[in-house]
Amino acid sequence: MYTLDDRQTAAQTWFREARDRICAALESVEDDGRGEGPAGRFERVAWNRNPASNEDTSGFGGDGEGGGGVMSVMKGRVFEKAGVNISTVHGVFAPEFAKQINGAAEDPRFFATGISLVIHPRNPLVPAVHLNTRYLVTTKRWFGGGMDLNPAIADDAQTSDFHAALKVMCDRHDASYYPAHSKWAEEYFWVPHRGRHRGVGGIFYDHLDSGDWERDFAYTQDVGRTFAELYPRLVREKMALPFTEEQRAEQLRYRGLYAEFNLVHDRGTVFGLKTGGNIEAILMSLPPLARWD
Amino acid sequence: MYTLDDRQTAAQTWFREARDRICAALESVEDDGRGEGPAGRFERVAWNRNPASNEDTSGFGGDGEGGGGVMSVMKGRVFEKAGVNISTVHGVFAPEFAKQINGAAEDPRFFATGISLVIHPRNPLVPAVHLNTRYLVTTKRWFGGGMDLNPAIADDAQTSDFHAALKVMCDRHDASYYPAHSKWAEEYFWVPHRGRHRGVGGIFYDHLDSGDWERDFAYTQDVGRTFAELYPRLVREKMALPFTEEQRAEQLRYRGLYAEFNLVHDRGTVFGLKTGGNIEAILMSLPPLARWD
Repeated sequence: MYTLDDRQTAAQTWFREARDRICAALESVEDDGRGEGPAGRFERVAWNRNPASNEDTSGFGGDGEGGGGVMSVMKGRVFEKAGVNISTVHGVFAPEFAKQINGAAEDPRFFATGISLVIHPRNPLVPAVHLNTRYLVTTKRWFGGGMDLNPAIADDAQTSDFHAALKVMCDRHDASYYPAHSKWAEEYFWVPHRGRHRGVGGIFYDHLDSGDWERDFAYTQDVGRTFAELYPRLVREKMALPFTEEQRAEQLRYRGLYAEFNLVHDRGTVFGLKTGGNIEAILMSLPPLARWD
Repeated sequence: MYTLDDRQTAAQTWFREARDRICAALESVEDDGRGEGPAGRFERVAWNRNPASNEDTSGFGGDGEGGGGVMSVMKGRVFEKAGVNISTVHGVFAPEFAKQINGAAEDPRFFATGISLVIHPRNPLVPAVHLNTRYLVTTKRWFGGGMDLNPAIADDAQTSDFHAALKVMCDRHDASYYPAHSKWAEEYFWVPHRGRHRGVGGIFYDHLDSGDWERDFAYTQDVGRTFAELYPRLVREKMALPFTEEQRAEQLRYRGLYAEFNLVHDRGTVFGLKTGGNIEAILMSLPPLARWD
């Protein structure tokens, strides 16, 4: 039986709450959306990291390596595919991997809890988006995460609005965050083999441990809260706009680039694929339809 | 100026001839196909490995690292996307990569010439296919390659026919080839993160150097000739069959798996992407449309 300490419990509880808030905000957009069929609703599927252990899927763990998560997927009339994963896992890193992880070279045991989402809208004028925040514990402990906007057809006004909202959010916590974390996103969300960024950026941070746990947790919570307000607003601005077949084709080509980034470069995806994580959860980020021509 | 020896020239000349035969055979299928629009035709685009060198794109090389290739792409009424690449390149492997290549640890200089193709048909009942054959020279020299059949909806009779034709072809050269090379394909075309094969197999071989160069070359030529007869026959059997929307959806999902294999596991693709090869040529294998849901 793996027992969570108060901070692990608080972080896990928050990620679950963030999931609930975000899913509710996206379902509300579906209610207001037009298009074929009824408003979309999320469907949840729980998974265990170690199905043989019979542990529960609440994520509080069980005997040995374990934990699990819950995938929430919605296929709606505004959102062609929206996937929101939460998971809480613990275990022991493989030796070669432990060396690469902050604080794990000394002791390979780890705990991780987080939320990860990718949203692919139907309308090519509505931007796709990605968010991930997580809390990790090895011999060290830290928060990490970020979000980035991925419009197939960029709109400078929305891009500015997105960055401005992130700056306001960051500045509530530390004046150094926005410059540092937006620059990190610019570097991370780069597709080397295409020589271009995958989207218009956002924020990315990792190994955040200021020495004040509550402060770092508050920032991570604000990332989730800000997303739940900001992204639906951007979607509502665009979701009723008419679009052309050529714009739809451009969106599908753009999603090809997005799939390339996730399968070739994204550290989380590649790690998950090579180490036998939950495939459905790992690949939930892949687009519902993509085009290479 | 890089000068090719007689064998390098013979191999390069053959791969160009194989390209011509295969493209002609596929265009002939287009002539006999039905569907919207006119019969498809291949369009060729040449590329240089080192555009600054101003060398020609015949592939015979120039000063320094170089060479190049020609991509042939057809978007037709039978074939949604057919891509056939030939290339001839030479240069010096990066030190860490040289260690992994047969005979390159001692001296990192290399020469490579080959043909590579991937065909994605429109009709989900028509199998997709991949072929690659190549001749490499380091301090050693060898042939390698193979082909594998990738039906979205497998047909046992066609699968048996495909394997039987490859066995007949292999047996013309060496009784050990079919068992060894079909087993190698079974191992190579495996998608570990999905726990399944990407298709129904075929043949795969590498480092083929029996000591009799002419014999090894003859086998490699036969792979190309056999393909040019075999695959069009399989396509003609199926291309006029009616199919359902659900079968088309199954094909698009299958192509998602195919894209995953190529982007995550295929050695050639991953190597090309990480070392700055010609992106358009490397990613020509990606499907015209793919689905993840």
